[in-house]
Amino acid sequence: MTERKLSPMTDLPSEQHLSVLCDLADIAAQESLMGFRSSLPITNKDAKKPGYFDPVTAADQNAEKAVRKAIHARFPNHGILGEEGGETKGTAPYRWVIDPIDGTRAFICGIPVWTTLIGLEENGTPIAGIIDQPFTKERWIGTVKGTAAYETQHQSGIAKCSSCDDLSMARLMVTDMRADEYLQPDEAEAIAALAARVQVTRQGLDAYGIGLVASGHMDLVIEAGLSWYDIAACMPVIKAAGGTIMTWKGGKVRSDFHRGRIIIAATEELAAQAAYHLEKVA
Amino acid sequence: MTERKLSPMTDLPSEQHLSVLCDLADIAAQESLMGFRSSLPITNKDAKKPGYFDPVTAADQNAEKAVRKAIHARFPNHGILGEEGGETKGTAPYRWVIDPIDGTRAFICGIPVWTTLIGLEENGTPIAGIIDQPFTKERWIGTVKGTAAYETQHQSGIAKCSSCDDLSMARLMVTDMRADEYLQPDEAEAIAALAARVQVTRQGLDAYGIGLVASGHMDLVIEAGLSWYDIAACMPVIKAAGGTIMTWKGGKVRSDFHRGRIIIAATEELAAQAAYHLEKVA
Repeated sequence: MTERKLSPMTDLPSEQHLSVLCDLADIAAQESLMGFRSSLPITNKDAKKPGYFDPVTAADQNAEKAVRKAIHARFPNHGILGEEGGETKGTAPYRWVIDPIDGTRAFICGIPVWTTLIGLEENGTPIAGIIDQPFTKERWIGTVKGTAAYETQHQSGIAKCSSCDDLSMARLMVTDMRADEYLQPDEAEAIAALAARVQVTRQGLDAYGIGLVASGHMDLVIEAGLSWYDIAACMPVIKAAGGTIMTWKGGKVRSDFHRGRIIIAATEELAAQAAYHLEKVA
Repeated sequence: MTERKLSPMTDLPSEQHLSVLCDLADIAAQESLMGFRSSLPITNKDAKKPGYFDPVTAADQNAEKAVRKAIHARFPNHGILGEEGGETKGTAPYRWVIDPIDGTRAFICGIPVWTTLIGLEENGTPIAGIIDQPFTKERWIGTVKGTAAYETQHQSGIAKCSSCDDLSMARLMVTDMRADEYLQPDEAEAIAALAARVQVTRQGLDAYGIGLVASGHMDLVIEAGLSWYDIAACMPVIKAAGGTIMTWKGGKVRSDFHRGRIIIAATEELAAQAAYHLEKVA
């Protein structure tokens, strides 16, 4: 008996971007949820750097493998960039960018604010993305040409950034303000000065905090030390939700962004007020 | 037509403690979830202290009012202590201790790690408690005489602390490590020194992090600046899950605990290793 194979698609019409992203997130969720709050061994990817801890588990690796396999079966000529498996070049103008578990520190502590990030690039520019949290069953999706959506198991609707244009009223997320974890001392100092001017600061959320900006519950995210796979999927979501994303110097965010520094803000005014405090950092 | 009234109970058998706590948490959840991710106005309770932000919303107040009303109807002679409504003295040996929304900062940022805390004291000692997160539908419950339970909408089972007895392997939660928010400078310094020795540190979880210690997903919580209503409900849960709770100097936690400082640890060994770094703080 011969196995029946699904025909690979050579094209990917834009109206299918979001449904494909949702399918891929569901595939990742099967693997990630199996490892969440289990007793998976934790490996330190940066054991060679003394005092530095960059955890990875089999859940990260299995989730990315499953997503890569599904993409390759369906779009064999597309490129793939993943946090765990690196780059597979394609011949099509499309490349998928995957962070199977963004927020592995939260993941290994049982905190349901880690997410699976899957983005789609066309000629190097992110055009669609998903931020998926399968334990709380929340996801944020968006394309640069459309609106963004926020979905839970109970409701779905348009995701729209808040109208906050005043730094003193902003709800800020920074994943870790400590100089010894992600940040250089001058970065930590600038972020601390900014955090002293906002209404409230929360830490430890990674891309879940970006989702909360997209749906209007937070207003500002400042990060440094990000990789491209941490942010590529989030950019179309934030843009489609009406928000702004830029580097600390007010530039466009590209895959070679300096020191992985970004500002994500509900409004352009808020982004500019944040940049005022950050742009002088070398 | 006369309204039928439920007869108030004058006694509270210990086998009913947990079911009453669950009922009260359900009552609070109706109010808190209505305000979560809505556009409730936020009031700063400490507006007189410059630079200090202690938010409260109508959700906090309504949730506590509903719980107080339910307790008073059923147990009219019991005392009640609540974060928002203060103390109502009773004549019975029982007092209920309520924090309707522990983690209001998370609440106003749309982050589902705030909890409702309801504890029951007998002659001043916490004997039963619940930590409830209604958005993720998770709760931790426990009595000093029994085991602790962890429940979600999908599963329920015994909550048991991890066996972590080595600080270098510990997953630590501190709600805010910054000296300007909760901590005095010497407290912040001691906690930073401790955090440098653990495997991973997460911030911003309040009592949700204590729940995660009870179910073995985190190992250690260090806090300062807590009030009695932040911790009374958590103590029976941690004890029933096999964990340890003590002051920074290794003493028993009572309602007059110094500077609201506590250590919660999965094991006695881990608590002692943490206390070594903290007990010298004045």
